[in-house]
Amino acid sequence: MNNLAIITDFGTMDGYVGAMKGRILSECNSNINIIDISHHIANYDVRGAAFCVFNCYNDFPEGTVFVVVVDPGVGTDRRSLVVRTSKYFFIAPDNGVLSFIFDKEDCQIHKILENKLVHKISNNFHGRDVFAPIASWIAVGKDILHLLKPTSNYVSFLSKPIRINENQFTIHVIHIDNFGNCILDFNKEDWLNIEKEHPGAKPQIFKINGFVKSFGDVEKGDFLMNWDSIDYLQIAINQGDAAKKTGLKIGDHVTLKIME
Amino acid sequence: MNNLAIITDFGTMDGYVGAMKGRILSECNSNINIIDISHHIANYDVRGAAFCVFNCYNDFPEGTVFVVVVDPGVGTDRRSLVVRTSKYFFIAPDNGVLSFIFDKEDCQIHKILENKLVHKISNNFHGRDVFAPIASWIAVGKDILHLLKPTSNYVSFLSKPIRINENQFTIHVIHIDNFGNCILDFNKEDWLNIEKEHPGAKPQIFKINGFVKSFGDVEKGDFLMNWDSIDYLQIAINQGDAAKKTGLKIGDHVTLKIME
Amino acid sequence: MNNLAIITDFGTMDGYVGAMKGRILSECNSNINIIDISHHIANYDVRGAAFCVFNCYNDFPEGTVFVVVVDPGVGTDRRSLVVRTSKYFFIAPDNGVLSFIFDKEDCQIHKILENKLVHKISNNFHGRDVFAPIASWIAVGKDILHLLKPTSNYVSFLSKPIRINENQFTIHVIHIDNFGNCILDFNKEDWLNIEKEHPGAKPQIFKINGFVKSFGDVEKGDFLMNWDSIDYLQIAINQGDAAKKTGLKIGDHVTLKIME
Repeated sequence: MNNLAIITDFGTMDGYVGAMKGRILSECNSNINIIDISHHIANYDVRGAAFCVFNCYNDFPEGTVFVVVVDPGVGTDRRSLVVRTSKYFFIAPDNGVLSFIFDKEDCQIHKILENKLVHKISNNFHGRDVFAPIASWIAVGKDILHLLKPTSNYVSFLSKPIRINENQFTIHVIHIDNFGNCILDFNKEDWLNIEKEHPGAKPQIFKINGFVKSFGDVEKGDFLMNWDSIDYLQIAINQGDAAKKTGLKIGDHVTLKIME
Repeated sequence: MNNLAIITDFGTMDGYVGAMKGRILSECNSNINIIDISHHIANYDVRGAAFCVFNCYNDFPEGTVFVVVVDPGVGTDRRSLVVRTSKYFFIAPDNGVLSFIFDKEDCQIHKILENKLVHKISNNFHGRDVFAPIASWIAVGKDILHLLKPTSNYVSFLSKPIRINENQFTIHVIHIDNFGNCILDFNKEDWLNIEKEHPGAKPQIFKINGFVKSFGDVEKGDFLMNWDSIDYLQIAINQGDAAKKTGLKIGDHVTLKIME
Repeated sequence: MNNLAIITDFGTMDGYVGAMKGRILSECNSNINIIDISHHIANYDVRGAAFCVFNCYNDFPEGTVFVVVVDPGVGTDRRSLVVRTSKYFFIAPDNGVLSFIFDKEDCQIHKILENKLVHKISNNFHGRDVFAPIASWIAVGKDILHLLKPTSNYVSFLSKPIRINENQFTIHVIHIDNFGNCILDFNKEDWLNIEKEHPGAKPQIFKINGFVKSFGDVEKGDFLMNWDSIDYLQIAINQGDAAKKTGLKIGDHVTLKIME
């Protein structure tokens, strides 16, 4: 059975997740393996959902269909997309929720022609009425090309580190995870490029000097910097909550200094 | 594989959900597809669970078995029910959790004869010991008629809009969802009946005038009224939390005025 | 398909659960049924995870593989274990998370030889890089004996009731569940042994006298003591939150008196 993985901001106290799952199963004769990635993206947090799917998509088997429904513009004229990469499919509103995928992968992008759908579509629940059936049909290999139209433009919001001078970068908090780790828009490749210019240099943010390998390399309660599970830089506290301790929020910036 | 969908108020920090799932799989030789609808119904909130199952049951494939365990009366003499509609099965305590189903569907109702179950039944976890095995057996088509007895009565709590005069209704908040949308006991059919009497009339609640189609039809932060995903009236704020802003709680009433 | 059940403290707002599930599916050609037990163990709460798996493992079908990832020591030299009992497999860090399993079951214990894994292993996400693939391979019956080494020692933290005198025990809160029930390190067997010494005796904690069978045996809002779903003693309030009302926390102790 093909895998269909879901990310939403629906929470799990209502029937909305059930409605999407029910609809997915109904449209494919129950011939799909549904996988919950997250239903606890913060309400309307397009960036959080974008980072969530980016964090895990590459671990899934080839052919997995991802449906990402964080959709504050539902019922307006925002477009709905089907995005195909070499290994996966992504179904989502065109609001930036696939920003990292567009950045990282070669993408074939189609917009969904909602007016060609023959069933009833509500004005406020396209997760159930548009994304669920489209994703379900794709996951079972149904031909839906007549419901799609190729497009080349899309919404993206990626922030990038800003070089202030030879030895300083302004970098941004792009995500704060369940443990309070603050993840920054600066990855291992960014650092390797700096190291070529400055062999042997060490990074500094606040008073944290250099990278450690794992949380346990510092005392319990101490700050550290390391590469997160997809090689993005994170500020963390061993068994503590760095976001709470620093007050950092998504979108805040910090200064990364290159110490020779 | 048949689908078995679960709604509980167990939360997801304990082993209770696991115990139910494990038991379901053990009783059917792992031959069932278990679907989480919600485990975050508020503790003991029979009404929230009733609205949750009502919101999504109709999206599921024919034959789906729903097990709804919000069960403050566990271990007392409250009855356990198996309810069959034209397309689905519902297994739940008889405490009102199926109120909307009884209202909407033709139901064959059986009570479970717990004394005919041969395995050990605890006093406080019938989710695992009664509802899970019964639901599992039904989902795989096992004959369990000897464990059931037809009944015609059941517990229901549905509230209804109250007509105060020609142009005013008292309606109640029946659910507040994850986004703070306040859902009322007044549906599209109720409105269509009013429109027959008052062609061209518009509804008003507080200072919100008329229905909009989608959240995006008003500015971000503004109030609106629209039909929710199952055509119940809701008070909402575009990308905001209407419950927090109004202070409305489940059970509160508001006045719906018919403006000619 | 074999069942693979997951317990973590990852929460459900990030991509970490997705990464583990994706990896599990990738390593077994999607030939496994993944079951969420909990992703809301409190951060780093090894004891909570230990109690969670203890609460439900025995309800699962024979052959189920449990993977328990609450892993504050990730990336340090803490060991990773594969534990086999007569019916199940458990994959987890060696930090006490399997304490109850070691206490209750005959266990064959192996440590994982991480240096024999040929794929890349990150320093901070062994849930994805070590536990997921190992669990996946075991669940589909792949021979991985070359990745394991038998061991006889392991970490455990079980607390036990302490007898103060003939008629008093000091017992500890080992878990507080979603409903606020306070579960104690004292089980039905402990009580049966006392009853042999003191026939007809009744227990008392605070001003709660004797066991009741079910919550509904006392008035709504009243305290009670009963056996929880795995026959551990719990202090509860009928439809209320005993932890909040008493202020009890995990690790606190109370006095159990034997009243003749």
